[in-house]
Amino acid sequence: MRTPVAPIAISRVENGSFSAADDILVTEEPLEIRLGYGPEHDRKEMRLSVTMRTPGSDEELALGFLFTEGIITDPSQVLRVAYCENVKAEEQGNVVRVELHPSIDLDPAKWQRNFYTTSSCGVCGKSSIDAVRTQCARPMSPAFAIDPNVITALPDRMREAQTVFKHTGGIHAAALFNAQGKLLVLREDVGRHNAVDKVIGVALASQLPTEKSLLLVSGRAGFELVQKCIMAGIPVMAAVGAPSSLAVQLARDSGLLLIGFLRDQRFNIYAGDSTWIT
Amino acid sequence: MRTPVAPIAISRVENGSFSAADDILVTEEPLEIRLGYGPEHDRKEMRLSVTMRTPGSDEELALGFLFTEGIITDPSQVLRVAYCENVKAEEQGNVVRVELHPSIDLDPAKWQRNFYTTSSCGVCGKSSIDAVRTQCARPMSPAFAIDPNVITALPDRMREAQTVFKHTGGIHAAALFNAQGKLLVLREDVGRHNAVDKVIGVALASQLPTEKSLLLVSGRAGFELVQKCIMAGIPVMAAVGAPSSLAVQLARDSGLLLIGFLRDQRFNIYAGDSTWIT
Repeated sequence: MRTPVAPIAISRVENGSFSAADDILVTEEPLEIRLGYGPEHDRKEMRLSVTMRTPGSDEELALGFLFTEGIITDPSQVLRVAYCENVKAEEQGNVVRVELHPSIDLDPAKWQRNFYTTSSCGVCGKSSIDAVRTQCARPMSPAFAIDPNVITALPDRMREAQTVFKHTGGIHAAALFNAQGKLLVLREDVGRHNAVDKVIGVALASQLPTEKSLLLVSGRAGFELVQKCIMAGIPVMAAVGAPSSLAVQLARDSGLLLIGFLRDQRFNIYAGDSTWIT
Repeated sequence: MRTPVAPIAISRVENGSFSAADDILVTEEPLEIRLGYGPEHDRKEMRLSVTMRTPGSDEELALGFLFTEGIITDPSQVLRVAYCENVKAEEQGNVVRVELHPSIDLDPAKWQRNFYTTSSCGVCGKSSIDAVRTQCARPMSPAFAIDPNVITALPDRMREAQTVFKHTGGIHAAALFNAQGKLLVLREDVGRHNAVDKVIGVALASQLPTEKSLLLVSGRAGFELVQKCIMAGIPVMAAVGAPSSLAVQLARDSGLLLIGFLRDQRFNIYAGDSTWIT
């Protein structure tokens, strides 16, 4: 079992003087996601992704990733997700295999990209700029109503529930709330995209009503986080930090209510129907 | 010419009351990097990467990316980097082509990955966990000396030089300083990895002495930023936020002096030779 935090001995330097200290680091390790697919008599395996993540909720991360990337459109298409045991000792707990239902007709060529990328973005592997926008998997909710005072209370509520952040001070969070501000699910990860995929994976597996919920993310709202939110049919996304130009454009095109700079009892509305906030 | 910021009309909500306001967003747009390679009589093209970035220093981003990913080991291997003109109107300024020297023997198979990924990590496209660690391109400097008071002064110096942050409040930065604390180069980007690649690209193109410099990054120090720093032969990396477990492990394996939580006149040393700080 991999742990989300790890102790470490460090030196602290303050006003030029050194002292030895104990510290706690957030764990960052690679997670490889493999996909089993095809008819029962001709089962195939594909290595789908390697992502640097904080261990924990790995099955949900895999499920959320497949969903927000459009590989699956419903959790029923997945038979099971489990850690691979036929791997090297140092990879134990860092490789999961998702078994797709044999009836799912997957086109591996669609996912075979002849280039690679590195970014914080999530257009990794899409074969051209044309492919940036993944098709939306779930229809957006036609309406939503939330009190502005409920919204401004959310960051403190998320922070209070962040157990790993309390120990390390260095981790991102994503949380799903209902319209009354009740916390439905929270996940922490070194990668913001992983935190969002974990939350969405939990929501899918638990059949949470994403169409009536709000997604809050620590940090900024970039294009890919907005894309994941829309893919999951979540009608409102709020970020503690700033949104980007493309995130706002995609939110406006998709009817997503996008909130930024949610802090100190105020926020900005960058996209969507502000009459939902009443 | 793409711009790094864009104006937008928004609603501000404070204590439940709405007001119209003008705001400025940081631009996030895809940059596609194409690679021209092979002998003059048989020139080939490969689509290498799509990354979501803030426009500006795109040529340096491409150069730094190729270098930190180990595709090139010296800037002389690149003939030129230029925007592609034979693209759709909406892609103008968002596609660059890097021309490798004809003598460079590139193995495209090495870069053809049959899966893709999405993360903030940078192991995107590596075909297994085994491949996470890219080989180091430049030897680390055997020694370095820097005053702790010089180090604690760096975050303010970087912040003062961040022009896009001043306008938008929502962007990452990476900066290269010399041992006396002089700012050599600073770049801002929605993607921290892009900011680092841009800085390294500038350093390569301008032949800055990376082996005698310190890289400062806003936010946290994850595995991939440390990897890029090591690839560029920069002996010291400092982050305003927390490092991750794997970042510390890689730094310790590589002899990188890794500083975290650099703020409020203090910092922590997570890896490397603390006698360099004198």
